[in-house]
Amino acid sequence: MRQNSARRTALLDASIEVLAREGSRGLTLRAVDAEAGVPKGTTTNYFANRGELLAQVMGRVQERLTPDPDALSETMREKPSHELVATLLGQLVERMRADRSSHLALLEMRLEATRRPELHTELTRFFAAQLEGNIGFHLDAGLPGDRTGVVLLYLAMLGLIVDDLTVPDLLAPFPFEELIGELTRRVLG
Amino acid sequence: MRQNSARRTALLDASIEVLAREGSRGLTLRAVDAEAGVPKGTTTNYFANRGELLAQVMGRVQERLTPDPDALSETMREKPSHELVATLLGQLVERMRADRSSHLALLEMRLEATRRPELHTELTRFFAAQLEGNIGFHLDAGLPGDRTGVVLLYLAMLGLIVDDLTVPDLLAPFPFEELIGELTRRVLG
Repeated sequence: MRQNSARRTALLDASIEVLAREGSRGLTLRAVDAEAGVPKGTTTNYFANRGELLAQVMGRVQERLTPDPDALSETMREKPSHELVATLLGQLVERMRADRSSHLALLEMRLEATRRPELHTELTRFFAAQLEGNIGFHLDAGLPGDRTGVVLLYLAMLGLIVDDLTVPDLLAPFPFEELIGELTRRVLG
Repeated sequence: MRQNSARRTALLDASIEVLAREGSRGLTLRAVDAEAGVPKGTTTNYFANRGELLAQVMGRVQERLTPDPDALSETMREKPSHELVATLLGQLVERMRADRSSHLALLEMRLEATRRPELHTELTRFFAAQLEGNIGFHLDAGLPGDRTGVVLLYLAMLGLIVDDLTVPDLLAPFPFEELIGELTRRVLG
């Protein structure tokens, strides 16, 4: 069967919705067919098996969560400062809130990875590349703080995202903008 | 049927293992019977339904993760300091590593809560009580830092726990003791 790139992307987007809504156990090739509204067996034609599908879902999540290059360039015209870091972290939260499904899919894959060694290896590589990318971006841009500071920001933002995805009211007494401002100021020194 | 407290606890512990190993979709009253090695129908006699079971699992997780009071008193004999906070956070990581199942069960419940409003309400209350408890403990003990500082520690430790549970090799280049030491020093000022 001929494959087409738009349809492949549509199947990956459908997979992300299924993961977010049904959990990783709900993700079957057939459930993806149904979610995408395509004939049964279509997903099987595009992905040899579920492992292959999950690997490509990671790549698609990364595409969906990557900031728009023009918007990012615009943001980076500001002078490097704590305020600029806080702006970047605020934009990360905005992207997360605009695409909760992608983050929920990642969280589902994290849990599935505790049970599937091969997914575990790929997911570790995926997050390690992201973390190294973040550190490199931060230092190359001349933003304040060191390598350890970026890792601490990453950890706190991961915690904040997990809470906002799953128990969003928990942090209601602590407005995000204030938390992010304090985090940046304290962690980057 | 008469109920007995040791058996109830055994069923809750079995539920935690099922959640950690099979995910929230794998948690059925029957799966708990099998995990606990008790006759079919036993779990149904103790818990009216799955929602009731999950609510009690939260309480059991809390019991399992609460530090031993004597050990905690011993730790708290030290003078309040950044080092003491780092020691407490290190002990939190040790308890997590000694009982990954409890933390995985909580993470599974977080994800299920995105789909079940009543679980969502209970889980939010559960984490809010924990967070307020942490803040109160910290301030009452005269440990350094303010309310916002404790919330930032909480977020970074949540991120660290999620990574250590699901992609533990990710942070291998950043030894935990160093991360926790830097986190404490920077966030608490």
